[in-house]
Amino acid sequence: MSLLVVGSLGIDTIETPFGKVENVLGGSATYISTAASYFVTPIRLVGVVGGDFTEEYIDFLESREIDMEGMQIVKEGKTFRWGGRYHYDLNIRDTLFTDLNVFEHFNPVIPPAYRKTSCVCLGNIDPVLQLRVLEQIEKPKLVVGDTMNFWIKGKNAELKKTLKFVDVLVLNETEARQLTEEPNLVKAARGIMKLGPRIVIIKKGEHGALMLTENTVFSAPAYPLENIYDPTGAGDSFAGGFIGYLAKTDDFSDDSLKRAVIYGSTMASFCVERFSLDRLKDLTYLEIQDRFREFKELSKFEEEVKV
Amino acid sequence: MSLLVVGSLGIDTIETPFGKVENVLGGSATYISTAASYFVTPIRLVGVVGGDFTEEYIDFLESREIDMEGMQIVKEGKTFRWGGRYHYDLNIRDTLFTDLNVFEHFNPVIPPAYRKTSCVCLGNIDPVLQLRVLEQIEKPKLVVGDTMNFWIKGKNAELKKTLKFVDVLVLNETEARQLTEEPNLVKAARGIMKLGPRIVIIKKGEHGALMLTENTVFSAPAYPLENIYDPTGAGDSFAGGFIGYLAKTDDFSDDSLKRAVIYGSTMASFCVERFSLDRLKDLTYLEIQDRFREFKELSKFEEEVKV
Repeated sequence: MSLLVVGSLGIDTIETPFGKVENVLGGSATYISTAASYFVTPIRLVGVVGGDFTEEYIDFLESREIDMEGMQIVKEGKTFRWGGRYHYDLNIRDTLFTDLNVFEHFNPVIPPAYRKTSCVCLGNIDPVLQLRVLEQIEKPKLVVGDTMNFWIKGKNAELKKTLKFVDVLVLNETEARQLTEEPNLVKAARGIMKLGPRIVIIKKGEHGALMLTENTVFSAPAYPLENIYDPTGAGDSFAGGFIGYLAKTDDFSDDSLKRAVIYGSTMASFCVERFSLDRLKDLTYLEIQDRFREFKELSKFEEEVKV
Repeated sequence: MSLLVVGSLGIDTIETPFGKVENVLGGSATYISTAASYFVTPIRLVGVVGGDFTEEYIDFLESREIDMEGMQIVKEGKTFRWGGRYHYDLNIRDTLFTDLNVFEHFNPVIPPAYRKTSCVCLGNIDPVLQLRVLEQIEKPKLVVGDTMNFWIKGKNAELKKTLKFVDVLVLNETEARQLTEEPNLVKAARGIMKLGPRIVIIKKGEHGALMLTENTVFSAPAYPLENIYDPTGAGDSFAGGFIGYLAKTDDFSDDSLKRAVIYGSTMASFCVERFSLDRLKDLTYLEIQDRFREFKELSKFEEEVKV
């Protein structure tokens, strides 16, 4: 199956208690595409960058078999830039700067060759643009969408309009509560299902993820990492692994969705082990399978043997 | 195996968005004993109450086969009383009042008949008293202890002394971080293991529980309850189900410990479905087994069939 990813491409500056990196590759579409590229290729990427988006970045994306026919390059403009600093408690981060640059006037145009795409992953961008993307795709089989507090607050009506066309909404627990004004996560997920998505995945970071479908509730553990270097991109890597696996298998049953959540969690767990995309860029299939199996061990228990 | 429980017996006043109850049975030892009583009886209870601890409460504890030879009744005194109000987001609560009353001068005396007890559960009381209890028990096979931020901050040295004699420490995620000054939960658990306990269980409320032993990491999901009426006693019910199962089976292997975590989670999930001990007081064995199996379904996923 074909997979199209829309979102931001960015240049990040990141500080954590374990180091600092400047001008490294970032952006939601970058993480999603890279994580998904371990499952299905080529990946159709739609985004915008400036003249400062170096050959090195483009070479990397191409090395992951990410097709860039849909990437707009505004030569006279600058790429979206984000700077963040994580605290000793990595759950807390300060945004140091957000320079939208060419991303401010991004208008996603889907190349004709991409209009028949089976799986679409809408990274966290303005819900108006997310809808504009969907309007250009002919009957996708699966639409996965991400969003954030900024859009829930600032473009609530637009977001709710877009959600009618989203099959799977992936968001974090704070966002789920904010979108539904419901503190109970299970009720919040059910509330989101009334807005359109038939599958809701609540990302809980160090606590794993919770998926609700019409007929099942699935609780995925987090991988117990002792050394997390950089949480940036973890949520996008999750979305990439999740939709990549589904696009590969063309199986949207509950059983397959559960495996997709574990593959998403697997990719997120690798992502945070190094800065930027350093850990995601050269994984082996064996490493991914081994970690998938470790996830299985993590939550497995046997019923007692009756005597 | 025999089980001894030490902790508070109290009279609670609880407000949640779903109602209010006044002068209901509470206290850590009460919840621990009641939850454990579904696995092993009689339970040896050591605590203190005042003259206001009514026959009704005593009858209830006796109905659960909780032996009260070790309960001190200070006729002229008043029982420990606690009042709390939960917010719409049940993770937030205000303490309205804490009247220690007879609990202020509690000195746990272990009756001679209790001195040979195999399993000991130390509810959340002053670590100095926890140690005093252990000094009166002859070589227990398993000691499970609970603590809280109040003791971590106020009696840190005393707590660390007590921890040398605790096999399993059960605490919540904030407390684990506070005790070790380490935000990463896995590292925090490993740090606690250096203080004495060879097994650490981090309770994460709506996110389940994480258990670390020397050789295993186990992630238990939370039961996805849509209607939580009163979170009071959930952590103590967890401890009661956990130690009750271990005392019943006399099997402290990693496999058995994992089942014990799920039985603990099962009892906690029942606890919060009604106010006070209302849901815990008349469960059936079948209800407990059914929920244990539901926990299994919640985190189960099949590896894909290779083609």
